[in-house]
Amino acid sequence: MAKVKIYITPKKGVLDPQGKTVESALHSLGYKKVSGVHIGKYIELDLTTDQPSHPTTKKLIDEMCKKLLANMVIEDYRYEVE
Amino acid sequence: MAKVKIYITPKKGVLDPQGKTVESALHSLGYKKVSGVHIGKYIELDLTTDQPSHPTTKKLIDEMCKKLLANMVIEDYRYEVE
Repeated sequence: MAKVKIYITPKKGVLDPQGKTVESALHSLGYKKVSGVHIGKYIELDLTTDQPSHPTTKKLIDEMCKKLLANMVIEDYRYEVE
Repeated sequence: MAKVKIYITPKKGVLDPQGKTVESALHSLGYKKVSGVHIGKYIELDLTTDQPSHPTTKKLIDEMCKKLLANMVIEDYRYEVE
């Protein structure tokens, strides 16, 4: 069993309105030292496999990210397998 | 300048309908080996500080998480400061 942690972030240069909103809200609350807020998704999942570090496992995760989890037009992803 | 990475996840025992939906979708796409999908938020932000590892910095981040970023009733958070 492998534990997979996937981080999905907006691509650089893509507007991140959610991040901008949170940044303004933090400023309004008095946290003026905050800048560059970016908001993405964090996905944890379990994968039944005997070979967590095998290339086929990585291929499988890449496939899942590209097909469903991330929108490759506007998002990047990276992951860790434990 | 410190780079802060915040991970917000649903608390254990709290329903995670988004995770369940993504899990079903992955199964429909043929990825039957996937289970235990949990979806949270991933937030990156920059903090203007000379002392990234100082307790006051940690206190500040804790405050921001509790006041705005995480809903402590249903979510947990953890963070890394770089």
